Amino acid sequence: MGNNNKYNKTLNVQEGINQPSSINNESISKFKQIKKKSLTADEYVKAIISGDITILSKAITIIESSLAEHQELAKDIITKCLKYSGKSLRIGITGVPGVGKSTFIEAIGKYVTSFGKKLAVLAIDPSSDISKGSILGDKTRMEELSIDSFAYIRPSPAAGNLGGVARKTRESVILCEAAGFDVIFIETVGVGQSEIAVHSMVDFFLLLMLSGAGDELQGIKRGIMEMADLIVINKADGDNLQKANSAKIQYENALHLFPPNDSGWIPKVQTCSAINKIDIDKIWDIINSYFKLIESNDYYRKNRLNQSLYWMKQTINEDLKNNFYSNEVIKAKIIELENSVINNQLSSIEAAKILINLYFKK
Amino acid sequence: MGNNNKYNKTLNVQEGINQPSSINNESISKFKQIKKKSLTADEYVKAIISGDITILSKAITIIESSLAEHQELAKDIITKCLKYSGKSLRIGITGVPGVGKSTFIEAIGKYVTSFGKKLAVLAIDPSSDISKGSILGDKTRMEELSIDSFAYIRPSPAAGNLGGVARKTRESVILCEAAGFDVIFIETVGVGQSEIAVHSMVDFFLLLMLSGAGDELQGIKRGIMEMADLIVINKADGDNLQKANSAKIQYENALHLFPPNDSGWIPKVQTCSAINKIDIDKIWDIINSYFKLIESNDYYRKNRLNQSLYWMKQTINEDLKNNFYSNEVIKAKIIELENSVINNQLSSIEAAKILINLYFKK
Repeated sequence: MGNNNKYNKTLNVQEGINQPSSINNESISKFKQIKKKSLTADEYVKAIISGDITILSKAITIIESSLAEHQELAKDIITKCLKYSGKSLRIGITGVPGVGKSTFIEAIGKYVTSFGKKLAVLAIDPSSDISKGSILGDKTRMEELSIDSFAYIRPSPAAGNLGGVARKTRESVILCEAAGFDVIFIETVGVGQSEIAVHSMVDFFLLLMLSGAGDELQGIKRGIMEMADLIVINKADGDNLQKANSAKIQYENALHLFPPNDSGWIPKVQTCSAINKIDIDKIWDIINSYFKLIESNDYYRKNRLNQSLYWMKQTINEDLKNNFYSNEVIKAKIIELENSVINNQLSSIEAAKILINLYFKK
Repeated sequence: MGNNNKYNKTLNVQEGINQPSSINNESISKFKQIKKKSLTADEYVKAIISGDITILSKAITIIESSLAEHQELAKDIITKCLKYSGKSLRIGITGVPGVGKSTFIEAIGKYVTSFGKKLAVLAIDPSSDISKGSILGDKTRMEELSIDSFAYIRPSPAAGNLGGVARKTRESVILCEAAGFDVIFIETVGVGQSEIAVHSMVDFFLLLMLSGAGDELQGIKRGIMEMADLIVINKADGDNLQKANSAKIQYENALHLFPPNDSGWIPKVQTCSAINKIDIDKIWDIINSYFKLIESNDYYRKNRLNQSLYWMKQTINEDLKNNFYSNEVIKAKIIELENSVINNQLSSIEAAKILINLYFKK
């Protein structure tokens, strides 16, 4: 975030060498020598900051692992990567299945890498089999991006509770930044609680929609629209063009009625046709103006700081709850008390107090 | 919620006796005999269910008290009142200062009591001195309602943390219902986190706005609009009428773009002039249709059940956090760790883990 030109500058890419500029052959050969034994945290970090994608992937797998030894190693890697992190544009992208999310990410992703920016695409989607096919599990839906050497696509971690998955994604972002990625997309399907988690780890939140405000909205959870910095209306092409333009006006009018963002940014609406790659440049321009604004008014820095402290508290809170609800005494008693609440024999608050007393007096 | 007519039926009010029909002189004289000694929980409950407002007020004061003996007594009173509770229409009313909230509550309150319904008005406003003057602290702003024997206005509890104040309000609702109140308004100022707490303890959420979508919106927190079942545009009178009508259309268009509520209800927009008592009846009609809908589709019952379990978990969660953050070991260490996070020496999640380990190993 050094100067305003950063977002449009091109990296020095050596033509003909079709791999990220920051990967050098030396680090690759070093990795080959040591790949049979386990790497130390320092070796991981060295390879990551040299841009070694294979090692980055391996490190993210370690973050996602639940083995105690992996968690210890992950902690060391993350802590050491921290000082190299924090420089990317973190962008959340949300849209329900059917909205054309993969095609959109492919189109804007290719646009971003076309001027030499390194792009990482991560996902938070701990939910279910239903949504799984529609997002990054299906890497083949991003055919061009998945073979683009400036892009790194990381499928969603295996199912788990949202809190855990979100934490791991947040830590993966740190590693991707240390590996030199300029832009990081974090993707969700817009149907669950994931969006709040994503919103609290990105700088910019993009909501992908279709022109009709009817059926395809059914899946979007209430509250998500008010988090959006940009609503993109996809499939603005052919017969659908007029409908998309009129939807744009409708959404613009609606967003005007919302209170302003803390960032001082007025949320925008933009149509595009991801499949025909139309107006993708306009979307990227909007994103750039946003980052120029929040850099100039210091929201970029302040928001990241708030997000860090938020995640610290959020993690504490989840760990406290996990400890409570996995406590044997609580597990033995809670159903009975919930039933008393349901049957109006006990107030919610009194039931809570009984459990809390049991918990702390054990 | 016995039948659909309930919301329009009039109670049997004895003309000339200007006090709630359910207060009888016997209970008043009994109270006089015993008021010098402390009442037992059973005596409180008996007086409350007979509609004794003085005792109700005293019981709410006990709920609000932080003395251990009061908390024990409050618990007993609430538990015993539970079986008489649950029958009212709980309505959240939110609007920033300047929107005319007191005048609106007075107007709709008088309309509600005019056909014999008993109305209680409670407030959640733990925030600050700034908002205090604008809401129930200033009872005199509801001149007519405050002398209406069918209305009970309870000022906001003294400042405290939001969680605590919200819990106490929720428990006061139980007592008000046991005392026979048909309609309960819970009021907030729309500028803080209180609205989420209120939304999770009411059946219907009303947002009061003005016609301009400019300055007066500055104070409304993002996310509140999407919680609204009804947006009321106040001050639709005189020169302002046309502007209010056009704002109505704008908000209607905006609400159409939102996903539907879990209740199956499509949020409405209605203009009114609270000061001239114009279209207050239309607002009450909308509220009635909502309650008819949620009674017929069973959302009324299911939502209350979910709210009860939500409050149980919410209370547990807050108590866990309070215990954690008031722990001496944590207090001694947390600032240092927050600084490490701020200075990028430690990840948020690692900082959280260190504190959690300290906490559970003490």
